[in-house]
This record gives sequence, structure tokens and C-alpha cells, in this order.
Amino acid sequence: MAALAVCAMSAVFLNIKSDAQLQERFPNLAPLPEVPQTPDNPTTEAKIELGKLLFFDRRTSGDVSTSCSSCHDPHKGWGDGNPVSKGYPGTVHWRNSQTVVNAAYLKKLFWAGEDTSLESQADSAVTGNLAGNGDPDTIEERLAQVPEYVRLFKEAFGVERPTYPLALKAIAVFERTVVTKDAPFDQYMNGDKKALSDSAKRGMELFQGKARCIQCHNGPLMSDESFHNIGVPKNPLFENDAQRQIALRFQHYARGVSEEVYRGADRDLGLYYTTKRPEDKGKFRTPPLRYIEYTAPYMHNGVFESLEEVVDFYNKGGGDDPRKSPLLQSLDLTKQEMNDLLEFLKSLSGEEIIVEEPPEPPYAVLDE
Amino acid sequence: MAALAVCAMSAVFLNIKSDAQLQERFPNLAPLPEVPQTPDNPTTEAKIELGKLLFFDRRTSGDVSTSCSSCHDPHKGWGDGNPVSKGYPGTVHWRNSQTVVNAAYLKKLFWAGEDTSLESQADSAVTGNLAGNGDPDTIEERLAQVPEYVRLFKEAFGVERPTYPLALKAIAVFERTVVTKDAPFDQYMNGDKKALSDSAKRGMELFQGKARCIQCHNGPLMSDESFHNIGVPKNPLFENDAQRQIALRFQHYARGVSEEVYRGADRDLGLYYTTKRPEDKGKFRTPPLRYIEYTAPYMHNGVFESLEEVVDFYNKGGGDDPRKSPLLQSLDLTKQEMNDLLEFLKSLSGEEIIVEEPPEPPYAVLDE
Repeated sequence: MAALAVCAMSAVFLNIKSDAQLQERFPNLAPLPEVPQTPDNPTTEAKIELGKLLFFDRRTSGDVSTSCSSCHDPHKGWGDGNPVSKGYPGTVHWRNSQTVVNAAYLKKLFWAGEDTSLESQADSAVTGNLAGNGDPDTIEERLAQVPEYVRLFKEAFGVERPTYPLALKAIAVFERTVVTKDAPFDQYMNGDKKALSDSAKRGMELFQGKARCIQCHNGPLMSDESFHNIGVPKNPLFENDAQRQIALRFQHYARGVSEEVYRGADRDLGLYYTTKRPEDKGKFRTPPLRYIEYTAPYMHNGVFESLEEVVDFYNKGGGDDPRKSPLLQSLDLTKQEMNDLLEFLKSLSGEEIIVEEPPEPPYAVLDE
Repeated sequence: MAALAVCAMSAVFLNIKSDAQLQERFPNLAPLPEVPQTPDNPTTEAKIELGKLLFFDRRTSGDVSTSCSSCHDPHKGWGDGNPVSKGYPGTVHWRNSQTVVNAAYLKKLFWAGEDTSLESQADSAVTGNLAGNGDPDTIEERLAQVPEYVRLFKEAFGVERPTYPLALKAIAVFERTVVTKDAPFDQYMNGDKKALSDSAKRGMELFQGKARCIQCHNGPLMSDESFHNIGVPKNPLFENDAQRQIALRFQHYARGVSEEVYRGADRDLGLYYTTKRPEDKGKFRTPPLRYIEYTAPYMHNGVFESLEEVVDFYNKGGGDDPRKSPLLQSLDLTKQEMNDLLEFLKSLSGEEIIVEEPPEPPYAVLDE
């Protein structure tokens, strides 16, 4: 049954013969709208100010070594610049650190969509053993011992005492301000026809046509927020580095895979950890494409260093994987076409967003 | 009712008029027997070897900074030498680190008897946020990535793969070898009448008589393993140091005291955290006295730097606390008597137990 379904789906896409047919089937590219409202955590100036301090505060980790910004560094595209992220001291992480930029628009956070809000993503990162390894109660007591935080929590939330869940809310509100929607692409879509070069315009046509990027990278976000196996090559780190092996085995163990999968696994299994359906092995959520000029290396395991490699990978129809999506086919792009596509991709990034790290407000002795 | 019971008990002890009566009522001092057997975790050479490595391995903590030996340092009396222990990086601990020496004999571990075996004590220390802040699954994966541990776990336990609960067992078995029962006092009790000086012998009489130490420090272990409030002075650290305040507030929070107690507490409440009975505030388990020459500073909060201070404290009838035990009364010891008592206390320590730190066995890439 599963094999039949795949064949049927494949046939559907192979039957799409014209660019018009392709664009009709998938949501159109479009400029980004305003950041979605979050009624249970509305944005205020006081929350932004508090959240910014917390985003850079290392005391939100177990051993006060690691802030959100340690792996989401504004100077590194709001990621950490490594193929697979550094981890909490004494550990290494197992996935590429994704940018915070425009994460405000995502409904599925992390590479396999494990969280559904910035608030819960922050919680996972703060407490995750390979990330912040923090304990909520400890963190709460630390924040309560900082007069500046006592003041700011009161201002932002009206409470007498900082709490961990409110800290997550403030961080999420700050992250919702880290947005770019004024890239050349957006300007072009908003009517400034000179915002894109001719090459980028050709690349945009290819993106929506011959190169078939729009099959997954569609809509204003340039992500369908769905999960696909594109056959990303294994990262040899998981075979050559004892610490990376520990990180991978820990994930398999913690996520409750079978003994057989645990023993044999040498790669990130993506959506499978959540669903435990074999057909979901190797599926990852389509990442949005804005700001990508600043977020190398690419893919969930950072195996590609440049956008050139990425385009080359797709041109060949993706990687080798028995479960690879039928959406991927060889593209036969010319060198010029690949260049045009790259020009378009670069037009998605706009100005770099730099936020300087504020000093951590100090502890104080409290009488109460 | 509670008040009546206390008065009744007080009367009992005040009615004891002679040393003979005192010694009749309490278990006699005696040399230590062999270390008690633990049928569910018998001692073997392979476990000792493994447990010793693990005791000194910093990878049993969250950020690989902290081993058992970090706070139980053989060169510091198997404690950490501070009034209140250092803690996990970014935190400080809230109690004095107790010696491992002769912990094999204890049925109640930690200052308020929170654990009942060395195995569970190790678990609490490894995972506690102010101690090791480690995650069992992460630690297990680390150990499984060390060929030397794979070999030793197989040898010690017959398993193919290191596990966290077995690591705790091995650590406990090693700790059961850290024992002193050949101090001058033991030699004396075993028949060598020259093992104690005349002053120490007089001190021993005082210990069991006028000084009334034996009321709590009795039996072979010199501890009744019961809980008493002796009015130990507050440690000003909890009022003067923001980090120590965090440690104390965290404990109150994590242990679920009422809002009122949380807000007002400025000291360790001891047994109260477990029972939540107001009369148990400030009660701590009587510590054994062997090896005390090496374990300064003294008391649960390390408030006394020397044994002289401790003896002086008891001579005055203990500290100020409305809940202080009626067992404590002014002793009216002369200077000579206090010296004799100190001589006896020093005779309980014997030779220092030094174990040199072994190198940590390295990680390796594993094929399987």
C-alpha cells in the first residue's frame, strides 16, 4: 500500500508539465505579512526589553555557561556557524543550529518540528541535556536574585517574583522582533521592480518552474512546513567522533527507539523519532529560505558549506536514500541557470540583523 | 501533647545523676565491626576497580566538571574543606560536604538522612542541581563510549553495556572500601591499653560521663543516627552572599515548603524538609566521629572551624534555638577536661586515607 501511494504521488508530479501547472498547485511566493499575533503572549516593549536580556543571559543554563545566544549568535546568522552545533559543555549537539531570524512565523520549530511555539522551543533548549541542561527551579531562583529582573518582570508581567514560564514568554517575545521582511525579494514583491537583478528574476522563474523549489519552499515563508526526505548525505562526524556518537546515541535512547534501531543507527532519523513510522526516517521540516546568506552551513546536519553545493545537490535530484521523496528529480540546470537561482536565493537575505550583547544584570543580596 | 512529651523526655535525662546510669541507658562505645554486607550489591574486586575510576570521573556530571571526588576529596578528609561546599559550576551548595570515610556503616546519608544507601546517595549527588547536575541517560551514553568502561562493566556485572544504575552500584562498592577502623581508639578497645594517652583515656570517661556526648554519639559508629536540634548558629553566608541565598531558596522551593516558610527562611531546616513537622526544624542527623581530625570545618553548615570550637559550643550547652534539644545542658568542663576531651576525639581518627586520582579512561570511536 505504501509503495503504491508513493508511486501514485510521484506520477502526479511527473505529470506536471508546465510552470503554470506547478505554480497553480502550490502556494505562491509572497512578501511576508506582519508577524502573527500571539493572543496568549502579546508583544509589549517591557517584554522585549526583558526578553533581550534573558536571551543573552548565561544563567539560563545549568552551569551558567550557555545562553540562547551561545547557539543563536547574531554575528553568525543567529545560528552558531558550525555544521553540527556545539553543545552544552562536556557534550556536543547533534543538529545544525537554526537561525532565530523569522522563526516568529514558524508553526513547527526544530528540524523535525518537535515544538510548536517559540515559548516551548525555548523551554526545550534551556532544559535539553545537549543544549542548556538547565533546571527550571534553579533558573527561577537565580532570576529572583537579580534586582533588575525583579523590576523588569514586574513591569512586563505585573508579578512580584520572576518565574520560569514568564521568562520563556519574554524570550519568545524578543525573538518575534528578530525579523527580516525587507529583503530585495520583498521589495520586488511589494512593487519595486528594480529591487531584483535580471539574473535574480530569471532565478525566481526557475525557482517556481524548472528547478521545482516551490514544491516545498512555497508561500510567504518559502516553506510548506511539511516533512521531506531529500537524501541529505550522512555527516561522517557521527562515525568519526566519539562525542558525536554519544550525542546521537543519547537522542536515540532518550527518544525511545527500538534496540535494533539504537544499535544500528548512524544518522539523525528526523520525523521518525516522533511518529516511529519507518517511512518517516530521514524526513525533516522544510526550512524557510530568508536570511540564508548568513546561515551557512546548510541542512539539518550542516553537511553543505555553501549555497552552491546546495543548488548542485538539488540539480542532481538530491541524495541517495531508499526513502527519498519522489518530488526530487534531476533538473538538468545549465551553469547559467544555477547562477540565476543563486542570485535569487541571495536576494532573500537583506541586511544583516545585528544586536549587541547587553551586560548581564548582577545578582544582589536580598533582605526579604 | 508535643510540648508535654518534650518536658517528659527532658526530665528523664536530667534525672540521670551518675555516669553509670548514663552508660547504661545508651549503646556502649565499641570498635567498629566489619563493613556490613549488602546482599543486593556484594563487594568484588572488579567492582572496586570500576567504582574507583567512576568516583574520580568528571563525566558523571552534567558538564563534565564535577566528579564525586570534587566534593569528596581524599586530600581534604574526603570532604571538600569548605564550611558550605562548593557546588556545580554556576551554583554553590548549601551544606557542608561530609566525609566518605566510614559512610559504609551509615543507614542514613546526608545531613538530614535523606538517603538510606550509598547507591541512592550517589544518585542524588550525581543528579542534584547543586551537585553534579547530571542526566542519567547522558552519563550512560558517555560511559558506553569508553572501551575501558565497557570492559570493566562486563567484568564486574557481566553486562554488554554500561548502565547508570550499575555505575552507582560500583561507586558504592568502592566507597565501602574507604574505611578506618584501626584508629588508636579502636586499638585501645581491642585490648592495646597503651594506644591511648592518659589524657585521652580521661577524655573517654568524660565523653561517656560528665560531657554527655554519648547521649547522641554512641555505639560502634559513635552516632545514634537520630536527629537533634543543637542550636548550631546560623551561617551568615546565607544572608551575605547572593549565590548562597539562591542555593537556600532553591532548596526550600524544590522541597515544597509553604510560601511563608520560603519567604522567611534564612537557614537550613534539616529534617523538616522531609517531615514538614515544625518541631523538626533545625534537626540534623548525628554525624559519626571517626576521622574528624581531617574533616574540618564542622556542623551541617561548617560554622565551626576547629574541634576546640565544637567542644566549647557543647560546654556552653549548645546554641540558641527555641527548639533546642533538652539533651544539651551547660557542662561546666574545666580547661583540663576540655583538653582531655579533645585528646580523646583526636584518637578517633587514625592514619589519613589517601587514594590518588586515577586518569580518566578516554572515549573512543565505536563501530557497532
